[in-house]
Amino acid sequence: MVRTLLLACFLIPSAMAAAESETITTVMKPVAPGVWRVTLGEPEEFTPVSVLRPAAKSEAPGAPPEAEAPPFTSGDIAFHTNARGCVAVLPMDSREQIYGLGLHLRMFNCTGTRKEITVNDHQGDEDGSSHAPVPFYVSTNGYGVYVDTARYARFYCGNLARVPETAPHETGDGKIATTTEELYRNKTLSKKAMTIEVPVAKGVDIYLFAGPDMKSAVRRYNLFSGGGCLPPLWGLGPYYRGHGQFKAEDILALARRFRDTKMPFTVFGLEPGWQTQAYSCSYVWSPERWPDPAGFIGEMTALNYNLNLWEHAFVHPTSPLYEPLRPLSGDYEVWKGLVPDFSLPRAREIFGGYHEREFVKQGVTGFKLDECDNQPNKKDPWSFPELSAFPSGMDGEQMHCLIGPLYQRMMAEVFERNNLRTFGKVRSSHALAAPLPFVLYSDHYDHRDYVRGLANCGFGGLLWQPEVRNCDSVEELLRRGQTCLFSPQDVYDCWFLKLPPWDQINTEKNNAGERLPEHAELEAKIRQLLEWRMRLVPYLYSAFADYHNHGEPPFRALVMDYPADKNTHDVDDQFLVGPALLVAPLFAGQTERSVYLPAGGWFDFWTGTAFEGGKTHQIKAGLDAIPVFVKEGYAIPLADPVQFITPQTVFNLEVRVYGNAPAAFTLREDDGVSLNPEQNIIELYWAPEKKPVIKRSGNFALERYHVRDWKVMPPQPGTT
Amino acid sequence: MVRTLLLACFLIPSAMAAAESETITTVMKPVAPGVWRVTLGEPEEFTPVSVLRPAAKSEAPGAPPEAEAPPFTSGDIAFHTNARGCVAVLPMDSREQIYGLGLHLRMFNCTGTRKEITVNDHQGDEDGSSHAPVPFYVSTNGYGVYVDTARYARFYCGNLARVPETAPHETGDGKIATTTEELYRNKTLSKKAMTIEVPVAKGVDIYLFAGPDMKSAVRRYNLFSGGGCLPPLWGLGPYYRGHGQFKAEDILALARRFRDTKMPFTVFGLEPGWQTQAYSCSYVWSPERWPDPAGFIGEMTALNYNLNLWEHAFVHPTSPLYEPLRPLSGDYEVWKGLVPDFSLPRAREIFGGYHEREFVKQGVTGFKLDECDNQPNKKDPWSFPELSAFPSGMDGEQMHCLIGPLYQRMMAEVFERNNLRTFGKVRSSHALAAPLPFVLYSDHYDHRDYVRGLANCGFGGLLWQPEVRNCDSVEELLRRGQTCLFSPQDVYDCWFLKLPPWDQINTEKNNAGERLPEHAELEAKIRQLLEWRMRLVPYLYSAFADYHNHGEPPFRALVMDYPADKNTHDVDDQFLVGPALLVAPLFAGQTERSVYLPAGGWFDFWTGTAFEGGKTHQIKAGLDAIPVFVKEGYAIPLADPVQFITPQTVFNLEVRVYGNAPAAFTLREDDGVSLNPEQNIIELYWAPEKKPVIKRSGNFALERYHVRDWKVMPPQPGTT
Repeated sequence: MVRTLLLACFLIPSAMAAAESETITTVMKPVAPGVWRVTLGEPEEFTPVSVLRPAAKSEAPGAPPEAEAPPFTSGDIAFHTNARGCVAVLPMDSREQIYGLGLHLRMFNCTGTRKEITVNDHQGDEDGSSHAPVPFYVSTNGYGVYVDTARYARFYCGNLARVPETAPHETGDGKIATTTEELYRNKTLSKKAMTIEVPVAKGVDIYLFAGPDMKSAVRRYNLFSGGGCLPPLWGLGPYYRGHGQFKAEDILALARRFRDTKMPFTVFGLEPGWQTQAYSCSYVWSPERWPDPAGFIGEMTALNYNLNLWEHAFVHPTSPLYEPLRPLSGDYEVWKGLVPDFSLPRAREIFGGYHEREFVKQGVTGFKLDECDNQPNKKDPWSFPELSAFPSGMDGEQMHCLIGPLYQRMMAEVFERNNLRTFGKVRSSHALAAPLPFVLYSDHYDHRDYVRGLANCGFGGLLWQPEVRNCDSVEELLRRGQTCLFSPQDVYDCWFLKLPPWDQINTEKNNAGERLPEHAELEAKIRQLLEWRMRLVPYLYSAFADYHNHGEPPFRALVMDYPADKNTHDVDDQFLVGPALLVAPLFAGQTERSVYLPAGGWFDFWTGTAFEGGKTHQIKAGLDAIPVFVKEGYAIPLADPVQFITPQTVFNLEVRVYGNAPAAFTLREDDGVSLNPEQNIIELYWAPEKKPVIKRSGNFALERYHVRDWKVMPPQPGTT
Repeated sequence: MVRTLLLACFLIPSAMAAAESETITTVMKPVAPGVWRVTLGEPEEFTPVSVLRPAAKSEAPGAPPEAEAPPFTSGDIAFHTNARGCVAVLPMDSREQIYGLGLHLRMFNCTGTRKEITVNDHQGDEDGSSHAPVPFYVSTNGYGVYVDTARYARFYCGNLARVPETAPHETGDGKIATTTEELYRNKTLSKKAMTIEVPVAKGVDIYLFAGPDMKSAVRRYNLFSGGGCLPPLWGLGPYYRGHGQFKAEDILALARRFRDTKMPFTVFGLEPGWQTQAYSCSYVWSPERWPDPAGFIGEMTALNYNLNLWEHAFVHPTSPLYEPLRPLSGDYEVWKGLVPDFSLPRAREIFGGYHEREFVKQGVTGFKLDECDNQPNKKDPWSFPELSAFPSGMDGEQMHCLIGPLYQRMMAEVFERNNLRTFGKVRSSHALAAPLPFVLYSDHYDHRDYVRGLANCGFGGLLWQPEVRNCDSVEELLRRGQTCLFSPQDVYDCWFLKLPPWDQINTEKNNAGERLPEHAELEAKIRQLLEWRMRLVPYLYSAFADYHNHGEPPFRALVMDYPADKNTHDVDDQFLVGPALLVAPLFAGQTERSVYLPAGGWFDFWTGTAFEGGKTHQIKAGLDAIPVFVKEGYAIPLADPVQFITPQTVFNLEVRVYGNAPAAFTLREDDGVSLNPEQNIIELYWAPEKKPVIKRSGNFALERYHVRDWKVMPPQPGTT
């Protein structure tokens, strides 16, 4: 289907004679089912689409239906250039709510705000900067807008008021405010618009994603990006990362201890100390700390750990990569290291090829890319300046937007050419990131804000992990661990702790070897959380299959599924996981909280207690429990916990059924590690007083899932 | 003297082939004694110099001597343009320290930092934004650099490292850091540069100010700007501002109470409630709250108050100025109000003319311009966007930089054409501001940061007032009052307090009419502080005369006078006032503090105790005292306190002399209110065992100063 619409755009001159707007005709072109590209002015050479060249996955089964028309009609978009760059004005009505524009940890609903989407590791700012400043937003009116720019664009989400053409009939309120809150409150505007300023550029491609609903628009964006990533099965098990100064023997001792004590970690991460030099990086095993890398990898593999290596993209002069990458790098150093231009195939060959030979072929299955973000505006700033020049022709601003995705793509490709999947960590991402098998993280470390990240990440093709390390209290440790359990990656990132945090939560005491008196009891509680993570692996893997095939975000805010329900519009302390689970974490100091359940039937995940939807409930939960609710109509497969995950692992499932309505679930079964196409689909179906159905179809040989039991959770009287 | 130097500039192409730098010849032109302009590329049409057109005051007696050569030689400045704008790289050596770049409240020494000089009222950010982002910096090496731009330029003050031409001999330190502080610490670079990125512009004029020393460079900048402002004499007395919802009768009652209780306020400020509408503004007296403006002004004048009116620049539709200013305003509203383009003479005529007729000619002697800054990056942003277009052709970014100075200049000119001086308050300023008779203020309200503002303001032709209002403790009230006493404007800004803060420090209790038990005692202490302010008026007036005539900042950091002394480089909790006073405020919770006294002799201002310079002293001070030190060689004239200041006021002086060295001081005597040139210079001279000398010269008729006594402060044994 190739259909071309003509869009009349109003070209507003930057000077004041705006009355004489010139009308130009701009091509609006369909580029995928329900996706249109509008070219405004002359777009820049380097943009996420031009550099990353996403392979749209629009024909996958289960894709949203083709939309008849774009969300806006011709003439709805105003555009002009000025000395600063260019400005596009898109429609907004006075009721619609806007979400997205990056992985904001301290902000949620974007309506009425200004976002300047810069790359910034400092999450105290509330200016729109984030680890992943994605120029995509989605509306409760059921459409999405992607602005294809690698610039620090500004989005004024319905908070600007143009001087009216005729003098307003305004009598004034005569009220004199005496607090800054009153004075500065953003007046609700009767006439709204989304005003987007792209600096530097004299034009921009804007992609419009039809709905019909909010989640469909997000799915179309994710499918346009290439579909969501599918992690290896082991990637959904728990991760542990050891102290940065550990030696091989320290890591091995802890790895053996976890096996001895039945702490079911599937991934072990090495922090900077594995290298001879960091910051910046040599990418060379330290002969003092790691005298026998091959032996070490062999031992870790024999213990059934997947191994993940910390690094960053900045190449220290002592690295073997320094000389070959020198002519392929930017003109400014970061921590004395080169910044390779990963948009150049030759730079990817050198960096990726080295990683392939030295690490991936030796058994390393993942990487953590640290500090690929930026810290521009603190007293002690780091990373390359925006004025940097790169050999491709990109400048530092563009590279800050794209270095994260470029690195992720390069490393994903290294694994792909070895027919392997990976699931790493990264501290910067941007547009079109759904297919990239990396999860974002931060040093911000505020639990409340980390939960907000789980609500926000689904708006922009992002994954986010609210990792655990030191804590102020045992309560906080458990509350954080509970949140992690229901997150894309369940990570204990103990890069400055010698003992695991359940031995000691306080950093100084931990590193002095002083254990908590209750460490054994706490270890048992953390073990229980890790085992719960293992129970959830089949459920999560299916949620990721939906992400992969249909662009459905596995972690997302309530509003995405219930945009018409105003009560969801500002809910950023609850989130949805997969098709059926609603999670409402508790924070240290809380013994209860209010939980909003959207319309429909809901059940307490742990007890089966029924809850009425469409209202707010006050939920009490002991220190060992996190409020989780199951949506009516879904069966939840829970695996008997395993100690680790290998391609041979078989999961014995207890399928839980809630309430009396028929319940179903679909599992994906495959080898869990490769790109081989063989797979089975297992449809689970239960209805009252009928024999449960298990229907397996496909061409994958191993039966990874074995349903050992169906458990009907007792329906109990609801609470208010 | 017209001498033209040729400066060879290296034009670095923005792409990577930087090796083939093109060498262009750029004209370096002397524009004032010791001031050179370097034109790089093609500067923009709208800059502070092109818009504000400063009248350089370079020939004043006492100006720094003409410098033989500019601080940099040809070829020292690299320049290139790129898609983002342009970049200039200026020399820096590894030891010099950089100051300035705006009124930073939370940062001081700029060395090693990045500053993005945007207009921002939110002082929690440490990104270089401020109420006055002045593109001027000064170095301990004794030169200043002014970048003539109204853009949000970025200054990388010696913290960028280019990839070296040849691979470095780097062995690495092999150290693995495990705290973010260690990891992100800015490594001291052996090779430094000042890298300046100006967005949008394809060129920029840079002005170089010779020393020979740091303060001379600053003086040259201030003289280039037109010389420092000379406040009216009354402007140096204490200010009080009443509650925003007060009516005329409330103001009058409080004004009478202050006269009855001998609280010597010279200026009374009205907050928003005087207008029919605020925010935005009608500029019309409220008939409910101010039924008889002329009668009110008459009564206040009879009570010997100068009257200051709050306003902002945003014109509400109900204002008589709305229709005439509509075609002369930007295309976006702020709080429903127009943003007039004050760069247009017609807009200034309408706005300034109205203010002249309605207020100045009726007896109002000053204004406070609120919210002329910006709050771009919070959840609830306000002010016009940078993408705004103004009829002059300026955009919103340029207007944000210039609206503060343009307003100040317009209002100063209104007073000037009435042969009057004024001394107002403003919340935004920028380059070339020294002649503007306004003092910057903030809502940030952190006492420690406010003292830092007093240290920072002198670097950039700015004045700053650390105003007092509500407080957490009586101690804090007194400590803040002490700081105010030694500041450009001694203001009690009680815009949301019904009672004066010495009646009640807590906002809620204050507005409920609940007085502190110790209010009478506290009132006496505040009275004492206000009387001390009155004592200091002659000294301060002379300091401002030095600012006016010679560009010498009346309030400044220690490092400006002692740049070679490394101990001063980071001192931002002490400051210098005028030629002879060093002030080291205490903060709530402190009973003592360390004070660094630079080399030379110093004396306790209050007791005369001698202190050795070149070392740090631990100073104890009771709640009623603020540590202040007098530099050897200066006599300090102190006036007997008066209740208010009129053109007829005569000050009876006690001249204090400290130590045994000869001591001198110069006073300026004039009518204190007009621009009339008549003035006297009074030279005071004292030497041990000689008769003190008072030498008056000039053509001003009134003897404003009468020396009633010379007091030799007893030299006492120094403390350590």
